Amino acid sequence: MPNIRVELLPGRTVDQRRDFAAQVTQAAVEALGARQQDVRIMFEEVAADFVANGGVLASEDDSRSAVVSRFGGA
Amino acid sequence: MPNIRVELLPGRTVDQRRDFAAQVTQAAVEALGARQQDVRIMFEEVAADFVANGGVLASEDDSRSAVVSRFGGA
Amino acid sequence: MPNIRVELLPGRTVDQRRDFAAQVTQAAVEALGARQQDVRIMFEEVAADFVANGGVLASEDDSRSAVVSRFGGA
Amino acid sequence: MPNIRVELLPGRTVDQRRDFAAQVTQAAVEALGARQQDVRIMFEEVAADFVANGGVLASEDDSRSAVVSRFGGA
Amino acid sequence: MPNIRVELLPGRTVDQRRDFAAQVTQAAVEALGARQQDVRIMFEEVAADFVANGGVLASEDDSRSAVVSRFGGA
Amino acid sequence: MPNIRVELLPGRTVDQRRDFAAQVTQAAVEALGARQQDVRIMFEEVAADFVANGGVLASEDDSRSAVVSRFGGA
Repeated sequence: MPNIRVELLPGRTVDQRRDFAAQVTQAAVEALGARQQDVRIMFEEVAADFVANGGVLASEDDSRSAVVSRFGGA
Repeated sequence: MPNIRVELLPGRTVDQRRDFAAQVTQAAVEALGARQQDVRIMFEEVAADFVANGGVLASEDDSRSAVVSRFGGA
Repeated sequence: MPNIRVELLPGRTVDQRRDFAAQVTQAAVEALGARQQDVRIMFEEVAADFVANGGVLASEDDSRSAVVSRFGGA
Repeated sequence: MPNIRVELLPGRTVDQRRDFAAQVTQAAVEALGARQQDVRIMFEEVAADFVANGGVLASEDDSRSAVVSRFGGA
Repeated sequence: MPNIRVELLPGRTVDQRRDFAAQVTQAAVEALGARQQDVRIMFEEVAADFVANGGVLASEDDSRSAVVSRFGGA
Repeated sequence: MPNIRVELLPGRTVDQRRDFAAQVTQAAVEALGARQQDVRIMFEEVAADFVANGGVLASEDDSRSAVVSRFGGA
């Protein structure tokens, strides 16, 4: 432990996941006093029409269109 | 919050997810007193041969063949 | 299936959970075509100082103080 | 209940999932005193470049290359 | 990996969890070809009035009263 | 999104969770290009006798006794 699950819109690259995993693991060591080898991080992609905020699918939410068009392919 | 995760057999349409997300968000506001904008709902599709009930894969469970054939493609 | 996980601030009553579970199950039958007996809903309470939005713990987020004081005991 | 979620590298066969689900359900009955029909098991495949241990993506972790090459297609 | 999450009614003993964890890990090695050291299992207790099946809280479900009285303390 | 779930041994302070949440949110913005306000992080404490690695409960795993005694109260 810690066991960390990251649900995010699709479209990030391996480089982005590598970079994020390294930063989060470092933060777990520094802020939580975890041992580096115990930190497990899993990513799960969730398409924009598979997530809703405030009852509105992200794929149909104007307030999110910029971030969805950058990442969240249906 | 609330944060709601919905694991379901594949095959539903965007219209079904939109409709369900709206109803569940409304229920969270009415029954749980949540603020609409705080409700986040994520759907994850799980194929019929990736879920087992009572030790039997749904794709091989006669008692579920009707619902699986309607939705749960392997 | 569906399997539904609801993470929410503590403080709701059994009546609220009962009511919400009934509404969500009904929505799963109507909107998703699920069989009532297959719908499983689990609630998990997450205290306000165990959840962060935009990097700020809900227990320290002025924009959420009303809803937190109503529910989210630390 | 119990509700059991299994996150694993891709590449296992239906036979392997069937066999594992049967064994875990049997263990839940024997060790936990669960009723067989109440045990639900869901599998989720996580590609090797979607999981990190100790801050290193499994797809880039020499200590895991054997198991990843056997299963964890990116 | 595999990463296994077990949600269950409260009331099991450490001995039961130890026994179940050992059996499930063995099954992961035998049936899934996992390496023993990679298998992580987490238990989460869910009280009977925090889970609903078919829209009915387990704490109020006559068909589950025996198993709930044995385990599922509210 | 992203939606991040952190399962960890009990015993961290609010300061540690605050610090970790801030670092992880910053990493999500920098590495994943997420909008800060969209990042939701939830912590769940899992006692040492509720998690097993390699089939051994963390509370009974000599290789983890130091980290467990620091955090993982049963």
